[in-house]
Amino acid sequence: MTRTVIESKTRTVVIGFDEPFCVIGERINPTGRKTLAAELEMGDFSTVERDALAQVACGAMVLDVNSGAVFTNKMAVDPRYADNNFVEPPLMRDLILRIQATIDVPLCIDSSVPGALQNGLEAAEGRPLLNSVTGEEERLELVLPLVKKYNVPVVAISNDDTGISEDPAVRCAVAKKIVQRAADFGIPAQDIVVDPLVMPIGAMGSAGQQVFTLVRRLRDELGVNITCGASNISFGLPHRHGINGAFLPMAITAGMTSAIMNPLRVPEMQAIHAANFLMNHDPNGTRWIAFSRIMDAVNDGTPFAEASQASQDRGAGRGGRRRRR
Amino acid sequence: MTRTVIESKTRTVVIGFDEPFCVIGERINPTGRKTLAAELEMGDFSTVERDALAQVACGAMVLDVNSGAVFTNKMAVDPRYADNNFVEPPLMRDLILRIQATIDVPLCIDSSVPGALQNGLEAAEGRPLLNSVTGEEERLELVLPLVKKYNVPVVAISNDDTGISEDPAVRCAVAKKIVQRAADFGIPAQDIVVDPLVMPIGAMGSAGQQVFTLVRRLRDELGVNITCGASNISFGLPHRHGINGAFLPMAITAGMTSAIMNPLRVPEMQAIHAANFLMNHDPNGTRWIAFSRIMDAVNDGTPFAEASQASQDRGAGRGGRRRRR
Repeated sequence: MTRTVIESKTRTVVIGFDEPFCVIGERINPTGRKTLAAELEMGDFSTVERDALAQVACGAMVLDVNSGAVFTNKMAVDPRYADNNFVEPPLMRDLILRIQATIDVPLCIDSSVPGALQNGLEAAEGRPLLNSVTGEEERLELVLPLVKKYNVPVVAISNDDTGISEDPAVRCAVAKKIVQRAADFGIPAQDIVVDPLVMPIGAMGSAGQQVFTLVRRLRDELGVNITCGASNISFGLPHRHGINGAFLPMAITAGMTSAIMNPLRVPEMQAIHAANFLMNHDPNGTRWIAFSRIMDAVNDGTPFAEASQASQDRGAGRGGRRRRR
Repeated sequence: MTRTVIESKTRTVVIGFDEPFCVIGERINPTGRKTLAAELEMGDFSTVERDALAQVACGAMVLDVNSGAVFTNKMAVDPRYADNNFVEPPLMRDLILRIQATIDVPLCIDSSVPGALQNGLEAAEGRPLLNSVTGEEERLELVLPLVKKYNVPVVAISNDDTGISEDPAVRCAVAKKIVQRAADFGIPAQDIVVDPLVMPIGAMGSAGQQVFTLVRRLRDELGVNITCGASNISFGLPHRHGINGAFLPMAITAGMTSAIMNPLRVPEMQAIHAANFLMNHDPNGTRWIAFSRIMDAVNDGTPFAEASQASQDRGAGRGGRRRRR
């Protein structure tokens, strides 16, 4: 049974075939969030702290931490800031320390800069998930030693030096190559979480079926856990949350066990709670019933994060009543 | 390639692995709809006619016609009305004639009374779907000759004289038996649409997984089309449309090609439109984009059936402009 274990200081999350779907919150990412990038440039981490709390309240089990910021003003006065190898490593350390001071939840260290991955691994408590290695030779040689040294699981994206193939068989072969190369480093398959790469169905009509086929093959042939950037499937389409809300249950049926996604969206989180119940990963529907009360509150006008936090507090109140005396 | 062909006077619907999911509207059913039963008892078919039009507007491709009414007042004065073999055959004929006079759409003749099935087959134009045969010996001997004589497809429910097994292997074996018995009558497998029987997850936590496993086996081993009464999965649960909206895409991924369901519900129809697009059964997302405009109108306060009808009228206006001159 494939179990990928991710840990914070005190909390453990297991990604696995017999576990509820693992939601990795994607919000702490200055790429494409200009306001957030500008705040980080000024050393303001208030949005990061707020996003960390809100995502966990809404159901994120792991938080992705992406350090891909562009510091426009600093770049204008100091050309070193044009280089992400200069910007990201200290930013990743600061992000992780701030988040860990705010909330105790396993993290996913997300950067294309090796120095940022290294700094993230140094700063993170517990056993974070590293994001990511690819099938590119240079990337394999840089990242797999870090994975081995720090004994952490890693996201493996199924592209290589030839780019992203449209052929599922090629993407499957790339994933196999990464798993084999990791094995050469002594890294077990259960510590590889494959990202099969999700394309937008608006651009490629076969993109959905492609993912479902790939996920089933990866699971049957490699026995690995599988994650993806879920919202990419609906890129550019109207009512995209409706597409995402169908895609996630379908991917789960095919064998996907995790996604990097926005947990602040009700349709997607509803789809995941329902899919967990339907996969028999929600004994007696306890979580569905709790979630349905949150939806009642949302329908009555309470913001989702607030209703979710209130639900968690009630749960903690029941479990921890004696501690309050 | 398995193709189940259903026809009205002029319209053809194909249930198949490479076709959009076939939505069979369930609303014309007096079982559990007391007001409708009372109307039918008085010979009032206005609700039936309205439901026929609204269901097709919202996306039903086939209409289920169930004659299971209890005529309470007539029963009080004439004991023959206590017998469904007396009530249903003329009612089925009347229902079908009324619906065919209202709208030209393939029908699904749904009764447990052989005389009602016979009358439905006599009254229906084109090639209706018969609902249903089971693995029970008596039922097989009564229904399969009708299926052969009228050359129609039939829904095969996977229970037999021992009842409904909780073991998917047994339910699969019952389906196989029906397909084999049909073959003895000269009925091809493509005219058998298996209903694997959906149990409520609220009562049986494994019910969802059970269906997905069964559907995959039925498709791989028998190559048949598969339908179900979809809403049963969420029976008794809060926010059940959220469960249904995840169940349908999951069942579609497993290989389900049709469902008997309520097409007047937005969450379920949204899930099916999204799943069709994700299965590459909606070239260029044309149908999704049309549906997203309907959702815009619904969000602005227009009733779903009205917004759907307006969308169809616009489509017909474009396609049929020349005819209007």
